[in-house]
Amino acid sequence: MINDTMYALGANRSVIRDLFEYGNERAKAVGRENIYDFSLGNPSVPAPKAVNEAILDIVSSVPSVAIHGYTSAQGSEKTRAAIVNDLNNRFGTSYTPAEIYITCGAAASLISVLRALITGNDTEILGIAPYFPEYRCFTEANGGIFKLVPADEKNFQIDFAALDTYITENTAAVIINSPNNPSGTVYSEETIKKLSALLQEKSAQYGHAIYLISDEPYRELVYDGAAVPFPPLYYKNTVICYSYSKSLSLPGERIGYILVPQTAINGAQLYAAAAGAARASGYVCAPSLLQQVIERCADVRPDLTEYIENRDLLYKALTKIGYKCVYPKGAFYMFMEAPGGDGNKFSEFAKKYDLLLVPGESFGCKRFLRISYCVSQEMIKKSIPAFKKAFEEFHG
Amino acid sequence: MINDTMYALGANRSVIRDLFEYGNERAKAVGRENIYDFSLGNPSVPAPKAVNEAILDIVSSVPSVAIHGYTSAQGSEKTRAAIVNDLNNRFGTSYTPAEIYITCGAAASLISVLRALITGNDTEILGIAPYFPEYRCFTEANGGIFKLVPADEKNFQIDFAALDTYITENTAAVIINSPNNPSGTVYSEETIKKLSALLQEKSAQYGHAIYLISDEPYRELVYDGAAVPFPPLYYKNTVICYSYSKSLSLPGERIGYILVPQTAINGAQLYAAAAGAARASGYVCAPSLLQQVIERCADVRPDLTEYIENRDLLYKALTKIGYKCVYPKGAFYMFMEAPGGDGNKFSEFAKKYDLLLVPGESFGCKRFLRISYCVSQEMIKKSIPAFKKAFEEFHG
Repeated sequence: MINDTMYALGANRSVIRDLFEYGNERAKAVGRENIYDFSLGNPSVPAPKAVNEAILDIVSSVPSVAIHGYTSAQGSEKTRAAIVNDLNNRFGTSYTPAEIYITCGAAASLISVLRALITGNDTEILGIAPYFPEYRCFTEANGGIFKLVPADEKNFQIDFAALDTYITENTAAVIINSPNNPSGTVYSEETIKKLSALLQEKSAQYGHAIYLISDEPYRELVYDGAAVPFPPLYYKNTVICYSYSKSLSLPGERIGYILVPQTAINGAQLYAAAAGAARASGYVCAPSLLQQVIERCADVRPDLTEYIENRDLLYKALTKIGYKCVYPKGAFYMFMEAPGGDGNKFSEFAKKYDLLLVPGESFGCKRFLRISYCVSQEMIKKSIPAFKKAFEEFHG
Repeated sequence: MINDTMYALGANRSVIRDLFEYGNERAKAVGRENIYDFSLGNPSVPAPKAVNEAILDIVSSVPSVAIHGYTSAQGSEKTRAAIVNDLNNRFGTSYTPAEIYITCGAAASLISVLRALITGNDTEILGIAPYFPEYRCFTEANGGIFKLVPADEKNFQIDFAALDTYITENTAAVIINSPNNPSGTVYSEETIKKLSALLQEKSAQYGHAIYLISDEPYRELVYDGAAVPFPPLYYKNTVICYSYSKSLSLPGERIGYILVPQTAINGAQLYAAAAGAARASGYVCAPSLLQQVIERCADVRPDLTEYIENRDLLYKALTKIGYKCVYPKGAFYMFMEAPGGDGNKFSEFAKKYDLLLVPGESFGCKRFLRISYCVSQEMIKKSIPAFKKAFEEFHG
């Protein structure tokens, strides 16, 4: 009398969460300072000052019932206005607050859009490797079919020949994630243009819109002047799933939004269905204090200095040792080829050195490992000898 | 290519939310001070001082990444420990943090438990009128069958003869809500004992546990010394769905918990399945700052003075005019018999006086209306002449 699917999802945590919990247990045993936990995308950079200043100011000056009361299900109108102002200023768009639905973070955004688009047990949702593995769980646990398009392991853009063969008449949406978790790469404008052309062609061929779901919590985390194309400017049937988890270092607070441009085909219906899905999933409103923080901080950008330093430090050290890594242009992940070519095996092996690296298989790239470098520089420095020993012992 | 069920849930808001949004629109037109909005259960009492003091202290003294970082999916261990300490102190139980799953409020708690218990499209979940209407939506949108047991309109306890006929071999759970929204009544110990006996008998008859889901966000809101029996002490297969929305006046913040006692049949599996369901619904963790607030405030109780004054003021005034009301012993709702016997009709009629009263049909009691008295006393006082005019004109 217990749902098997839900039981399996609860009993078998994601590989990432599993490694994180393993790290917590190890930390209890040998001390946190001796664990090199590169498992979780928990920002190491404090929230921008403006965030905590906003909290202090709101709590000190706004009446309690106004701070902590319910908002409309789609979120406070002022906060939605602040969000569209920021988007319109950056992208030359003219969105209105009615096109924004404030959510409890990117996972909530994605689930709401997916449940809105899954119309039967033949609905197909495509992801592109390497991908965030919860896309599969989010899709399958809500009645859809998830298909993973193999990675372009050369450039970590999109293998369009492969994608072409994966799209069928049942394809409701393609999910992309750029800057990418786990590869740290950013889809180029050329990639987005090609993707747009393919989706337009296939939508016409099958007689219905194939939506592009752009999951972009890392939009603000790009380096070396890399540009992140804004997909709705290229493909009108794009839905944005955003989160402030990474850009404002607020992953535990669960605050983000869905943008459903009303110029998208069936945009109003899709917005309403996403709202209905949020309701069916138990979302009443996004946390109200944090909504007010976003009202004040929608245009605040993260300080990237530490991530850039971490990336440079780690990339130089690992490649010097002999590891091969994808050079990250965004997010805070480095994708490393597993010595020996088997990410699972090397992840297990590395545990001996208390190096916690997420096997790439979970992301659809077996030969790789994900290293989250949103950690302290001290830990990175201390971990280098462990990486060196692991490399040498593995090869010796 | 849009899910019809989700669209309907999004396009057709709950009657309560609808009335609330109507009130917001009317307020823009004629001024907030001229609207007597009794629609929403948005606490009018500020959060206890300790809550905002805790926020200020945490934000001023705890490092940002520790405040705003991810917690384990089931919630911070310290917060779960604070919650079980409070429960154990009050109820003489010996729960451990492993039996608590921290959630984004009661709706999230309920959805997670329901998705854990719905195993097929024949799974039946029972509610008891008057009930919180989202139970139906939460159940049906997640693949189950919702059945509503008719109300005991005399005492607003449980009509056991009716409940007996509703339980079948497919019944997975019965949801109760005491102190009750919308009737304001509290289930007596006798009621809980009878319910326990019936569920034990039926569980034995059908060869599987029928769980009792006790949705109790109003546990702390009881008046006149009324006692709220703690259901797990009477029936071991009880799951508690709690929220701090009402007790700490934090409805917008979305923070609550599920208690799955490990002494319940298949308790460990049910806990894991609820965790899986939370994951499948896009919950990553409950808001982290608020978790830390609860760690400090799990034993803080609300100041009930204002609710008691409101209740007394409204009850006296309405009964003096001639309305018939159920005398509320808990929560912050008054259930009023609709003049003319039709709640929908009177709710529409009352809008003419800018009195926003929720029709009882949504709660399974057509003859009634729900009045949320968690509003300012000034509004209650100003509304009395409107109630009087409405009564007189309706009868004239």
